[in-house]
Amino acid sequence: MLSETVTLDGHIVDSLTLSKVLDLILLHGGAYEIVRVRIGATRADTSSAEIDVKADDAAQLERILHVIGQHGATRPTEAVRSAPAPARGVFPDGFYATTNLDTFVRFGGSWIPVEPIEMDCGILLTGDPADPANLSAAAVPMHRIRKGDRVVVGDAGVRVVPLAPRDPTSLFSFMGSDVSTERPKEIVIAAVARRMREVKAAGQKVLLVGGPAIVHTGAARSLESLIRAGWIDVLFAGNALATHDIERALFGTSLGVEVDTGAPAAHGHEHHLRAINAIRMAGGIRQAVEQALLTTGIMHALIERNVPFVLAGSIRDDGPLPDVITDSVQAQDRMRDHIPGIGIALLVATTLHSVATGNLLPASVTTLCVDSDADTVIKLMDRGSHQAFGLVTDCEFFMKELAARLEEAP
Amino acid sequence: MLSETVTLDGHIVDSLTLSKVLDLILLHGGAYEIVRVRIGATRADTSSAEIDVKADDAAQLERILHVIGQHGATRPTEAVRSAPAPARGVFPDGFYATTNLDTFVRFGGSWIPVEPIEMDCGILLTGDPADPANLSAAAVPMHRIRKGDRVVVGDAGVRVVPLAPRDPTSLFSFMGSDVSTERPKEIVIAAVARRMREVKAAGQKVLLVGGPAIVHTGAARSLESLIRAGWIDVLFAGNALATHDIERALFGTSLGVEVDTGAPAAHGHEHHLRAINAIRMAGGIRQAVEQALLTTGIMHALIERNVPFVLAGSIRDDGPLPDVITDSVQAQDRMRDHIPGIGIALLVATTLHSVATGNLLPASVTTLCVDSDADTVIKLMDRGSHQAFGLVTDCEFFMKELAARLEEAP
Amino acid sequence: MLSETVTLDGHIVDSLTLSKVLDLILLHGGAYEIVRVRIGATRADTSSAEIDVKADDAAQLERILHVIGQHGATRPTEAVRSAPAPARGVFPDGFYATTNLDTFVRFGGSWIPVEPIEMDCGILLTGDPADPANLSAAAVPMHRIRKGDRVVVGDAGVRVVPLAPRDPTSLFSFMGSDVSTERPKEIVIAAVARRMREVKAAGQKVLLVGGPAIVHTGAARSLESLIRAGWIDVLFAGNALATHDIERALFGTSLGVEVDTGAPAAHGHEHHLRAINAIRMAGGIRQAVEQALLTTGIMHALIERNVPFVLAGSIRDDGPLPDVITDSVQAQDRMRDHIPGIGIALLVATTLHSVATGNLLPASVTTLCVDSDADTVIKLMDRGSHQAFGLVTDCEFFMKELAARLEEAP
Amino acid sequence: MLSETVTLDGHIVDSLTLSKVLDLILLHGGAYEIVRVRIGATRADTSSAEIDVKADDAAQLERILHVIGQHGATRPTEAVRSAPAPARGVFPDGFYATTNLDTFVRFGGSWIPVEPIEMDCGILLTGDPADPANLSAAAVPMHRIRKGDRVVVGDAGVRVVPLAPRDPTSLFSFMGSDVSTERPKEIVIAAVARRMREVKAAGQKVLLVGGPAIVHTGAARSLESLIRAGWIDVLFAGNALATHDIERALFGTSLGVEVDTGAPAAHGHEHHLRAINAIRMAGGIRQAVEQALLTTGIMHALIERNVPFVLAGSIRDDGPLPDVITDSVQAQDRMRDHIPGIGIALLVATTLHSVATGNLLPASVTTLCVDSDADTVIKLMDRGSHQAFGLVTDCEFFMKELAARLEEAP
Repeated sequence: MLSETVTLDGHIVDSLTLSKVLDLILLHGGAYEIVRVRIGATRADTSSAEIDVKADDAAQLERILHVIGQHGATRPTEAVRSAPAPARGVFPDGFYATTNLDTFVRFGGSWIPVEPIEMDCGILLTGDPADPANLSAAAVPMHRIRKGDRVVVGDAGVRVVPLAPRDPTSLFSFMGSDVSTERPKEIVIAAVARRMREVKAAGQKVLLVGGPAIVHTGAARSLESLIRAGWIDVLFAGNALATHDIERALFGTSLGVEVDTGAPAAHGHEHHLRAINAIRMAGGIRQAVEQALLTTGIMHALIERNVPFVLAGSIRDDGPLPDVITDSVQAQDRMRDHIPGIGIALLVATTLHSVATGNLLPASVTTLCVDSDADTVIKLMDRGSHQAFGLVTDCEFFMKELAARLEEAP
Repeated sequence: MLSETVTLDGHIVDSLTLSKVLDLILLHGGAYEIVRVRIGATRADTSSAEIDVKADDAAQLERILHVIGQHGATRPTEAVRSAPAPARGVFPDGFYATTNLDTFVRFGGSWIPVEPIEMDCGILLTGDPADPANLSAAAVPMHRIRKGDRVVVGDAGVRVVPLAPRDPTSLFSFMGSDVSTERPKEIVIAAVARRMREVKAAGQKVLLVGGPAIVHTGAARSLESLIRAGWIDVLFAGNALATHDIERALFGTSLGVEVDTGAPAAHGHEHHLRAINAIRMAGGIRQAVEQALLTTGIMHALIERNVPFVLAGSIRDDGPLPDVITDSVQAQDRMRDHIPGIGIALLVATTLHSVATGNLLPASVTTLCVDSDADTVIKLMDRGSHQAFGLVTDCEFFMKELAARLEEAP
Repeated sequence: MLSETVTLDGHIVDSLTLSKVLDLILLHGGAYEIVRVRIGATRADTSSAEIDVKADDAAQLERILHVIGQHGATRPTEAVRSAPAPARGVFPDGFYATTNLDTFVRFGGSWIPVEPIEMDCGILLTGDPADPANLSAAAVPMHRIRKGDRVVVGDAGVRVVPLAPRDPTSLFSFMGSDVSTERPKEIVIAAVARRMREVKAAGQKVLLVGGPAIVHTGAARSLESLIRAGWIDVLFAGNALATHDIERALFGTSLGVEVDTGAPAAHGHEHHLRAINAIRMAGGIRQAVEQALLTTGIMHALIERNVPFVLAGSIRDDGPLPDVITDSVQAQDRMRDHIPGIGIALLVATTLHSVATGNLLPASVTTLCVDSDADTVIKLMDRGSHQAFGLVTDCEFFMKELAARLEEAP
Repeated sequence: MLSETVTLDGHIVDSLTLSKVLDLILLHGGAYEIVRVRIGATRADTSSAEIDVKADDAAQLERILHVIGQHGATRPTEAVRSAPAPARGVFPDGFYATTNLDTFVRFGGSWIPVEPIEMDCGILLTGDPADPANLSAAAVPMHRIRKGDRVVVGDAGVRVVPLAPRDPTSLFSFMGSDVSTERPKEIVIAAVARRMREVKAAGQKVLLVGGPAIVHTGAARSLESLIRAGWIDVLFAGNALATHDIERALFGTSLGVEVDTGAPAAHGHEHHLRAINAIRMAGGIRQAVEQALLTTGIMHALIERNVPFVLAGSIRDDGPLPDVITDSVQAQDRMRDHIPGIGIALLVATTLHSVATGNLLPASVTTLCVDSDADTVIKLMDRGSHQAFGLVTDCEFFMKELAARLEEAP
């Protein structure tokens, strides 16, 4: 039987990290002996443990060390290893696949941060290996790799920092992974408003990712007012949100339903096509604003306030609007450009764009998923980032309450 | 091949009744010939049709006539037939099973209304058969029948009136059987408020059927204010709504969660038990109000305003409160007592009590089901009354918006 | 008050078309008088009506005639009108927006079919207007239009044929728009199998649109066997279904979970990235099959059987696989290429691809949506084609039962 | 600042108990110092910790000690305290409210088990306090208490044993609290079958709690065969399951739908009323079997195999059947009678009866909730016992697969 000793540091008891690591060793057929453990005497103190991991053979030991490495169990320090990419858009064999947790690589005796970090990427090393001070490491998606790029392989010399435990006295912590609808939601929304104020005060950005139900339900008014008041720094959406917002601006309807009365309009189901056609004729959304064709709504507010947005295409789109990026890889890259500096991400009433954004966000970003369907929220959290909170409610109610809370004096 | 001619009268085209009747004849293996049809030239005019129903044998013909009879297809008039109940709580063989549509029985040459009407009952005839003027007919549930009671058997001499078509220009009609969440709900709730004003103006009653999520989500404040303002005339609920309301009044928590902060309270999960225990010690809810133990909340408002309520027991109850009727048949009967005169029924965040109430309501009562889970609303409408409208949303949002709309000047 | 007389022909009573048309006239503020009505005496006979539509002004009358025109109410015959497209990808003002119902345009005294038909398109006229015999009409999506193309404007000379009523004795008709889970699903699946046999016997194609849950739940085995047995003629999916299928083929896992034991595999969450990387290295799925890298699974079966597939990209994709069409407009067009000849479409466990496919299908294609979430099925049917049937169940159960039914002798 | 030292023993690291206790101290405003901690070196070894809990005042300290006591943190040993019940059905002030975890009370220097244990009860002490050997303790629901009964008050001298950690290599552990539908469910059902074999081999009982969807979907066949094969030891249900099962036996329909063809039967919606009426006439289900009126189905199998069942009434019942216990408190008590000895509880397609049963089960019983609606499963687990596993799937699929697995040789 082979063994190797790993160390675990940080809030490993109250973040449940120690328990998880011990469970994973057993789950993958290994055994363990705790060599030494020191538990912080107060909440402020961190803890540490030294664990002897045992396995039947080298392959199993390697597997276990890899798995627990992703929860912060660090092996005796050796330098990170890399290999050249064999072709454009292809990682070398044995590439290290990233998580969205803070990650470091060991080089020249120091730990170099992987910046930016993003899940399901490789780690690209750049700079002169002979000069560690100038070496940098970044998570890079597969399609961006060029032949010959140096990409990290194996686990040695890679360290991830477990997600800090949630502050048990914070309002968010009550939500946990709970997606129950039977909670007072006003309180949760008030906490979101407070977090948005903190994010803005810290000079970070607020990201809103939204689906067309925001327009269909009449919540567009609230979102528009949030944008005009400067609360939203970047918006990710699809053709549908922008189209129905413009439909509402031009015809007063959303998917053919009059937003102010709930009545189906005559010719209503065609309004979204006529809206798209009009913007195509104008040349784009900004042009439509400049030509005074578009004078109200979410998209108008974004243009007027110079808030950047990414409209990503999908195969269910009609038209689409000229501003829609129809290539999904390009659209992802444009979304990536806006990720740095985001402090809170609100994912509202869209499964597709929420999962896509969750894939790009570092675990350190406060992330809230809002949907009226518990199943959707569960799916998001299953796939997405474990840092996400779920709120099962109407986007109409959420946006209206949020706007009301942010209009109040802080 | 046998045949019999039936007549259909009323808004049989725009209520889809004619289509349904023709479909049902085919579905049950028969054939038809339309002898005569007259379609109203304008919306105000009713239509009528005379249909020759054909079947292979007498049993099949009887089946078809029965099925289409439940949609208003009336056979050549003959008197209603009855048989004595063979035992207490048992209907005679071949008893006529009611729908919740307006129903009449033919006797002595005139049509006598079945009052009250309720689905899944038998029709009890009382009075002197020799004196049709004094004869009366009522829908009676199985358990109330006494040995020897005269109960209608067969379909002959029974006529039901199809549900009037929904006014296509009414706001409610947009909802249809649609349970989509992607509609502007504020508009629907405004329509509910208008309907409540109409109901009150007509001297009818507003029934609220509610589940404990009303308290858990903080919506109890809104419901309490509606009761104090006189909008609610009768409330049906279970042990849970009353218990968590009293828990909130006594401890500020609901299911142990502080309603004002969302934080779990110390000892919180026991609060509902301590609340029940306190009311049991006091002798009941009214006594607790009189002893100034209970000074706020939904139940307090009901007592103060003298609004009647029925708390029906269920097997998941703790305690229960002394006011809970633990026998389900007795509880049903107490609910039945309050049905006459109801103009609108709001079924909010409870599957059990909503289905139970739906079973008791005549089809002529405006019925709205509100739940955050589309599946629940679908189940309600599958089982319940076809007149029901579904609204998939938070009860927190619904109650708050409704209270806001009803506080406004009409 | 203005008026115009329209005619309605076909199964207008049992398809509820007459009722709908009368309702729509009132809903849009008009009035009507029924000039003449003839109701078919038996099921085989069609009915017809002549209706005088009244409105306050010309604009309102036009609106009403347009709306009821989409349900088959035909105006006194005049030729279709067209206008040239003002720019590439832009329809002329007032363009006629299509439904997915069978549609005809009037030209030179005859009705020319619009082929293919697709909802939310314009109608492109081609051929010599002086020679009606050579004129053809086709539904064309906005992005395909070229400057100067002749596109139909207004409603005059356009006729749509209402969807034929569902045969009330057909198994499918029991499903209706009902998405209840409380039905015997084996029976429904048996009906689907029978319909597939009919489709194949008629020389039509079976389309399967699937999400990755097919692989995650272990249903891939059933789908693979259906493909190998020749039941599937074309498959639409995304990067995820193909990736997880290949992950299962290469590593025995799906999203890192061992498909045969349910246990999470070591390194499992990275397997899908390694699978994509391997296929990118090979150059594509076909190449991976030819190189004997990929030897089993859904994608292998498609390649071996030469069954065409379209993998459409989305912004949540990792990689993606080289076979994925990342441009959404191109992907739509490739899907369009496969629509002609489809007799039944099975949309299984994917919202995005199901809605996208629903947008492309003529109403005459039997369409079944299968999802474990009632809300998803409701959304599909809200947006999608009204001809669709919903089945709320596990894709695992659905695929397994379907494969079992199709293995039996017919 | 006050403080008191508590001890924690057992699998407190891998069951996350230590983390939870530390979190709870902070959450309730206290502070802690870890005096001593010993972590087991291998999985077999237990761990222990001594924690100094600090609080601002005595009331806060008492609250914290109470809360962490419910996770096993034991105070320096003192004897349990009790007070007499002030009235029939009323606990004394400050009564100890039970959890469903194994619980002991300290008396005369030894720990006496609370048997049976049930959540949300009080602890009744019986026997001579002067003779600890004869003292016994039992969880008793509020309604069963008689005036003067000795009931435990306060936390002193009460110890609960934290739930043992789930074996990470067990199949069940993969399910966790996860209610995702995207898992291979055949594997989970195979694990359930294995657990049922273990339970039977250990001489324990299998409890099936079921809703009427079992009959509506056609799964009744599978349940009937499981009962006849001896797999089910006790069944809890309501009027609906029994009624529709008998409807199926007498008429071949369930809620009026023909179970074998899916077609709505003529007169179908009345069949369940006629079924109830027939059983009422016979005097009960057993009598109907004896009179050869009822010759097949679930209820017939239960009677033939002498498997006990509890049919609990609810306010939505028609009839009900004579076997239904209409008083909810009596029905609960009858269910309680069957709890001892149960090894596994299967809660299938019923929210009401599942939550009611969850309230009665000790945490040591393997509990599986099966429902097609994720929201229902979430609600069950929110309220119910934390030991419960959720499976989101059709009951039709679940019952059929389970029956297939149990028919195989083990």
